[in-house]
Amino acid sequence: MYGLISKLAVVPGKRDEMIAILSEGAAKMPGCFSYIVAKDSSDENAIWVTEVWDNAASHDASLSLPSVRNAMVRGKALIAGFEKVATTKPVWGIGLPGPV
Amino acid sequence: MYGLISKLAVVPGKRDEMIAILSEGAAKMPGCFSYIVAKDSSDENAIWVTEVWDNAASHDASLSLPSVRNAMVRGKALIAGFEKVATTKPVWGIGLPGPV
Repeated sequence: MYGLISKLAVVPGKRDEMIAILSEGAAKMPGCFSYIVAKDSSDENAIWVTEVWDNAASHDASLSLPSVRNAMVRGKALIAGFEKVATTKPVWGIGLPGPV
Repeated sequence: MYGLISKLAVVPGKRDEMIAILSEGAAKMPGCFSYIVAKDSSDENAIWVTEVWDNAASHDASLSLPSVRNAMVRGKALIAGFEKVATTKPVWGIGLPGPV
């Protein structure tokens, strides 16, 4: 498996709008086991995205999906910063396919 | 919902052992929607744990479960450091209950 933990900084006041755009873009992504969007509890302009994919190729391919490309275009003006906090190899998890 | 993103530093050479202990401890935790354990891809002594709970009370209650307490006791000697990277409010996600 392949994982990403990312932190997005949004333009002040635009977090809910950005979350909605991410939601539309993330539907039906082949090979995606988990894709969770969360508000940071202490920074009102920060969003965390944690992802688990079957492999890195599926993640890379998702960036070419029309829904994802469209979301990236729409969200671009709302993003003030992007930090890839970690690239991971998920080992097991509640909420993932297979035995826990 | 309530979320946590944590980074554990393990004693060198003990990552796989620590992951196994986490796995045993995390089974059957009421209110836990997602609990994913992942190896950091660039730091061989780091583990990421990303969690989603129905609420903070369920998370807090899990710390009193016998399985979790047992895992904490067994894992204590393997942990070199612990960083709570973020406390979050998950909004939606693939792999969570409810509509995506």
